[in-house]
Amino acid sequence: MINPFDDAYFMKRALQEAQLAFDKNEIPVGAVIVMNNQIIARAHNLTETLNDVTAHAEMQAFTAAADYLGGKYLKECTLYVTLEPCQMCAGASYWTQINKIVYGASEEKRGFIKLNTTLHPKTVVVGGILEKECSKLLTRFFIEKRNLN
Amino acid sequence: MINPFDDAYFMKRALQEAQLAFDKNEIPVGAVIVMNNQIIARAHNLTETLNDVTAHAEMQAFTAAADYLGGKYLKECTLYVTLEPCQMCAGASYWTQINKIVYGASEEKRGFIKLNTTLHPKTVVVGGILEKECSKLLTRFFIEKRNLN
Repeated sequence: MINPFDDAYFMKRALQEAQLAFDKNEIPVGAVIVMNNQIIARAHNLTETLNDVTAHAEMQAFTAAADYLGGKYLKECTLYVTLEPCQMCAGASYWTQINKIVYGASEEKRGFIKLNTTLHPKTVVVGGILEKECSKLLTRFFIEKRNLN
Repeated sequence: MINPFDDAYFMKRALQEAQLAFDKNEIPVGAVIVMNNQIIARAHNLTETLNDVTAHAEMQAFTAAADYLGGKYLKECTLYVTLEPCQMCAGASYWTQINKIVYGASEEKRGFIKLNTTLHPKTVVVGGILEKECSKLLTRFFIEKRNLN
């Protein structure tokens, strides 16, 4: 049977969030948090808008999901994020005890894999879902930025 | 000449914040951010109160300091925190480009040193300031917790 709610389905929702960031002139990273095939939180990068380096999409999504659930752990949830999380966000995911992290594009330099951030032992990671689409939006953003400067 | 604004002076202010956390039944960690010998942000752990694992003292202090300064970088600032930062908070400090991190007690298990979190190349770290006082408050918290359960 075909599952309409596969990783690509939710990554598309995360990409929609990334597009919202793009439209605000923010580095286009988007995230959703899913529990039982339901999106319980959505967020996009707002570091410029909020003047706050901690306002990554994932951080806001963790806070919103915990708020929705009324408890601070996300043990039965999956994070979908268009870019591989950084140390801060992966470090936050450790505290949430999140079940799964699915990311799109890799972050070769500042991603948590390269920097060896410790995840919660129960957290499963899947990378490369809609990688091209996620990367393309980021590349387009940086090209447009460069051309403006 | 004696400098009244030494690391111990500001760590005492961070300890006052930790005591506020203690009084709220939060793991007692406190932080202040200092620029030119002036405290520009103070915060204490609020993870239980806010139901939010990202509400560590340091994270809130970074956000508050950036808000105060009107810019997201803390290049001329020092973070004083009563406990060695975790991966998330050290990861956040990377993005702030903070000048200096001064901590009190060590976190042997989940601290950024043991977990090898990458700091910004310009960030200097000093540990062990008022270590005993910082540890004592944490130990007292966990002993009281255990006796209640």
